[in-house]
Amino acid sequence: MTLAAAYSVDSPTGTFGKTTVDRRELGPDDVLIDIKFAGICHSDIHTARDEWGGTSYPCVPGHEIAGIVAAVGSEVTSYSVGDRVGVGCLVDSCGRCVNCLAGDQQYCLNGAIWTYNSRVPESQQRGGVTMGGYSTQIVVSQNFVVRIPDAMDLAHAAPLLCAGITLFSPLRHWNTQPGKQVAIIGMGGLGHVGVKIAAAMGAEVTVLSQTLSKQEDGLRFGASHYYATSDPATFKELRGRFDLILNTVSADLPIQHYVRLLGLDGTLVYLGLPPAPVTVPASLLTNSRRSVAGSMIGGIPQTQEMLDFCAAHGITAEIEVISADRIDEAYDRVLRSDVRYRFVIDISTI
Amino acid sequence: MTLAAAYSVDSPTGTFGKTTVDRRELGPDDVLIDIKFAGICHSDIHTARDEWGGTSYPCVPGHEIAGIVAAVGSEVTSYSVGDRVGVGCLVDSCGRCVNCLAGDQQYCLNGAIWTYNSRVPESQQRGGVTMGGYSTQIVVSQNFVVRIPDAMDLAHAAPLLCAGITLFSPLRHWNTQPGKQVAIIGMGGLGHVGVKIAAAMGAEVTVLSQTLSKQEDGLRFGASHYYATSDPATFKELRGRFDLILNTVSADLPIQHYVRLLGLDGTLVYLGLPPAPVTVPASLLTNSRRSVAGSMIGGIPQTQEMLDFCAAHGITAEIEVISADRIDEAYDRVLRSDVRYRFVIDISTI
Repeated sequence: MTLAAAYSVDSPTGTFGKTTVDRRELGPDDVLIDIKFAGICHSDIHTARDEWGGTSYPCVPGHEIAGIVAAVGSEVTSYSVGDRVGVGCLVDSCGRCVNCLAGDQQYCLNGAIWTYNSRVPESQQRGGVTMGGYSTQIVVSQNFVVRIPDAMDLAHAAPLLCAGITLFSPLRHWNTQPGKQVAIIGMGGLGHVGVKIAAAMGAEVTVLSQTLSKQEDGLRFGASHYYATSDPATFKELRGRFDLILNTVSADLPIQHYVRLLGLDGTLVYLGLPPAPVTVPASLLTNSRRSVAGSMIGGIPQTQEMLDFCAAHGITAEIEVISADRIDEAYDRVLRSDVRYRFVIDISTI
Repeated sequence: MTLAAAYSVDSPTGTFGKTTVDRRELGPDDVLIDIKFAGICHSDIHTARDEWGGTSYPCVPGHEIAGIVAAVGSEVTSYSVGDRVGVGCLVDSCGRCVNCLAGDQQYCLNGAIWTYNSRVPESQQRGGVTMGGYSTQIVVSQNFVVRIPDAMDLAHAAPLLCAGITLFSPLRHWNTQPGKQVAIIGMGGLGHVGVKIAAAMGAEVTVLSQTLSKQEDGLRFGASHYYATSDPATFKELRGRFDLILNTVSADLPIQHYVRLLGLDGTLVYLGLPPAPVTVPASLLTNSRRSVAGSMIGGIPQTQEMLDFCAAHGITAEIEVISADRIDEAYDRVLRSDVRYRFVIDISTI
């Protein structure tokens, strides 16, 4: 075991403080990464504050990790010391089920191991749960490491490891291409990357945001249209318009109004987990063969594909870099939507 | 106008009685059909009893129509006197919108004209609403008439015009083929035809019925498995099993239990309209990229494709033929699920 400095929280109402976490001895297949930047995802907040239940404390969040390979195990062939790499939401999976074999490790039938707050043997991690990227180092199997293209700044790349793949995967799965009408609900950390990627795939992109306050940004990121959902006229004007609507908002929305904006064979995809169940009259589905679906991040091969796609199209996240002692403040600002568009922790400040 | 004998109902609580309806003069594009058989669909009951609202009285239901061409308009090229033909749920649509042009007239953006209780000019139909197939004759544009293959008995073919296409269309749309796991919820008029068609397409078919009372029939129709949904073990054993689940039940079901039976990328499709909205926790959608969708009958070209497919595979509906004076009794028996599996009215008894 080696010790890594980290920021952790000790209770649902606690604040972040400096600590250390054990990182396991480098196995033959493992990569030791010096973490340079870690993005702050809304999931970090839900987990740190135990809003989904099941949080083990102390908790070190962080699953948008960008860094440099510091050491490799004896059988590591994919990475060398000095390589620029990333780790996202997953650090392991069974590797044998049909979904893992297809590269969809996020849907591992035997339960993937998540980057933080996921149960592992006590021999791997003191406390028996994974510890995330708000930390100076992490040890991860080479199969769960991705390469960050040279063209991409590490700080700006970090949020792509969760926010980027969460949008890229459904956009690919539902065949985003020229001629397609795509709407993104929410212009936050997820949504703003989705606008960039969907536009780069050639779709005509519409942002559906509560207000027009970020309209200028949305159009700059590649959206062709920007509508305020606080205006009832939006829902009349856009009826039947979209092939694909990606819902990045984790708050409850009157989703039936958004379903009506889908055209024939259109699909509305949940990317977050609002508290209330999805509730839609069946007639809105039958009368235009519409679907309501869900999607969760993406597998490791697709995460690499996403990074390469983003590099090729000059896409990264819009970020505000903070020092580690400002995590609590950043959380509060995320909850107020007061960030354009993702906080990234400079790990050198730990 | 010509007069046709018919059975109509005059109020939501009325019983059926003999009457006459006007049928419009044959236009150049029209086909006059001597109706031989008309199936009784659950929608007929909802409409006759005004359970969906909006029923105009007198009401002549019936949209599973099989008959013989009695006369054709001057510009009709597709059909000749003596041809064996069918009419389903649709008798007209705008013909110009993108959906009509694609042959998906059921999703006409300007509003399709349904075979009964659909608004039309008073010049076409006294009372200004369409009158359906519980009648000796009907006049329909040739574009909304389909050919019943010679191999197919007219009485057994009639229910295919609604029940058959309602199942065939989503089975095709969601790529039913060998290797696919398909479940049908409900073994009634719709479900039993769905089992036959899905099996003929090569899928491995499972019936999810309240009890095992129709198990022998289900297996004979082509199902490989038959489960009782009244047994909680069913929902444990089948978790994650299916690529496609077709819900033929119009009553409210605890649909989240059925959604859990879908595997990765599986889709549950509503074919009916239960009173309560579809309600599903978003996590059940995101955690296996599942979809909940809806589908409504099928377009005219696909209805013809369905009839030809069924003829090629020796598929028709299982029916009980009744005389027209027994419609009320048949309705009550449908509501008690006391029919195997579709009532068909012998129109010669009107």
